[in-house]
Amino acid sequence: MAELSPRCKLWLEAGDRLVMSDYRLRLLTLVGETGSLAAAASAMGLSYRRAWGKIRELEANLGFQLVRSEVGGAGGGHSALTDEGRRLVEAYDRFRRRVEAAVEQAFREELESFAPPARPTA
Amino acid sequence: MAELSPRCKLWLEAGDRLVMSDYRLRLLTLVGETGSLAAAASAMGLSYRRAWGKIRELEANLGFQLVRSEVGGAGGGHSALTDEGRRLVEAYDRFRRRVEAAVEQAFREELESFAPPARPTA
Repeated sequence: MAELSPRCKLWLEAGDRLVMSDYRLRLLTLVGETGSLAAAASAMGLSYRRAWGKIRELEANLGFQLVRSEVGGAGGGHSALTDEGRRLVEAYDRFRRRVEAAVEQAFREELESFAPPARPTA
Repeated sequence: MAELSPRCKLWLEAGDRLVMSDYRLRLLTLVGETGSLAAAASAMGLSYRRAWGKIRELEANLGFQLVRSEVGGAGGGHSALTDEGRRLVEAYDRFRRRVEAAVEQAFREELESFAPPARPTA
């Protein structure tokens, strides 16, 4: 048997609707880092349209704006997280890191030493 | 915005192959409790064949048996967890419970108080 490893998928819902996930966290974090939804989308292999759709869906489910965009200007368009968006991204990121640490620790203590029955080697 | 709630999906892999998940834990736990794969499958709305398939897949990926079945006898067939199967089920269940507790705690501390921007009520 190959070595065991734990996997964990996290997300947040509000009334059964998705409002944050690890995947969307990455997209939003990239928007914050690059200042560009186009760059964030491209870094994740998403079309601009699809990336916008994902953000708009979260915003509709949350009831507030996560990203604001300014079209045009000298350097072309610019996107940034709203204050509320940044606050949610930061809180979810802390949540995610804490859960990941707990997964690693619980796995180490409960399962890492799990050994299958010895099999004859001869 | 409806109240936020965290969601977490956990599983175990060995060399990128699935060896345990919450869903399969439930199936195996039911086999242990009922002594019958047919009853366990039925309780989960699975066909007997499909339930067997899921267990066989885990066994192939783990390299050891999780369930042993005795066909026939006075009361018909009987299924039970192997010692190794029970050991894995119990360890995974402890792992799962610890992670769920950590998810609840991290959520409470990082996200539960997350309030969207106040909206005009008039």
